[in-house]
Amino acid sequence: MVSRRGRGRPRGESDARERITAAAVHEFGEHGYESATIRAIAARAGVDPALVHHYFGTKADLFAEAAGFPLRPDVDVPAILRGPREGAGERVARYVLESFERPEVRKRGIMLLRTVIGSKLASPVVAGFLTREMLPRIAGALDADDAQLRASLAASQIVGMIVARHIVKVPGIADATVDELVDRIGPTLQRYLYE
Amino acid sequence: MVSRRGRGRPRGESDARERITAAAVHEFGEHGYESATIRAIAARAGVDPALVHHYFGTKADLFAEAAGFPLRPDVDVPAILRGPREGAGERVARYVLESFERPEVRKRGIMLLRTVIGSKLASPVVAGFLTREMLPRIAGALDADDAQLRASLAASQIVGMIVARHIVKVPGIADATVDELVDRIGPTLQRYLYE
Repeated sequence: MVSRRGRGRPRGESDARERITAAAVHEFGEHGYESATIRAIAARAGVDPALVHHYFGTKADLFAEAAGFPLRPDVDVPAILRGPREGAGERVARYVLESFERPEVRKRGIMLLRTVIGSKLASPVVAGFLTREMLPRIAGALDADDAQLRASLAASQIVGMIVARHIVKVPGIADATVDELVDRIGPTLQRYLYE
Repeated sequence: MVSRRGRGRPRGESDARERITAAAVHEFGEHGYESATIRAIAARAGVDPALVHHYFGTKADLFAEAAGFPLRPDVDVPAILRGPREGAGERVARYVLESFERPEVRKRGIMLLRTVIGSKLASPVVAGFLTREMLPRIAGALDADDAQLRASLAASQIVGMIVARHIVKVPGIADATVDELVDRIGPTLQRYLYE
């Protein structure tokens, strides 16, 4: 998403896109993910709601753009889960761990996690996105009555892993290879998701 | 620990204890857990180092007192692991989850987690305690070459669970019972620790 931002576009479009992104940051911050509307974001940016949809797609897409996280786990993880069930836990673990080896993902991911967990104010915004968009899509890719709990359990291990490896930098986990961690975490995710 | 604080003690002792705790908060905050010394804390409080040991025990004990967390996982979890290996993962999961049902543990635990994860400054203090005291003691209760990694993996799932249930309040996990979560998380901890 980031690479799309204002490159080689007519000046008027680039201006409108920037106004919309700024308005989105404001509206999401003020009202939380669930209550913020495309209509209100468009009004604040002084554009038609249709233009917001045209440039950014859905509210989830616009949020991802506004949050600046160069990864779409809300899209990618369900895609992984639509593949073969065998080894799905390991593929999800590898997707997350390898993504966080990329400096731009790690930097932005740490910032987002610090903000969500550290600030009472910011928590509801990302938490709203997580619970309204990401987890339902992951749960939707599972075939189980307790799909929501299963998706949330997997998310809890993934968040705990990122916090341990990249924020608290716990010995053992911080210095393990991606392969070692996939070996340990993969079966956990597989069990939470399917067993 | 909290209930011991300044109740029914001679005024001089209560004063000295409060000065020591305040000095500890300062020294841990300034130098981090690893570099802070009982000697420097005693000097700042204007007392003999022996008195700090007499009132508070080890550096870990003093840290627990200064942090005000009404739980000693660095003592309790190794004690649990010294029991029968079978069901140890579930007992650890239950210990953490049931402790966090107590409002005073939950409130203080959330505050500590928010601070550790949310603040670059505070992270090294609690992270230092975690990696110098808690994880080595848990690893010490395990009989494995990779005990440090095993202890850290269990910690990552526990932290992820507390964040999901009590900070982000993820649906599915936030509204599950302790028993339901022990059923799901227990086997994960058991596998990380022993399998």
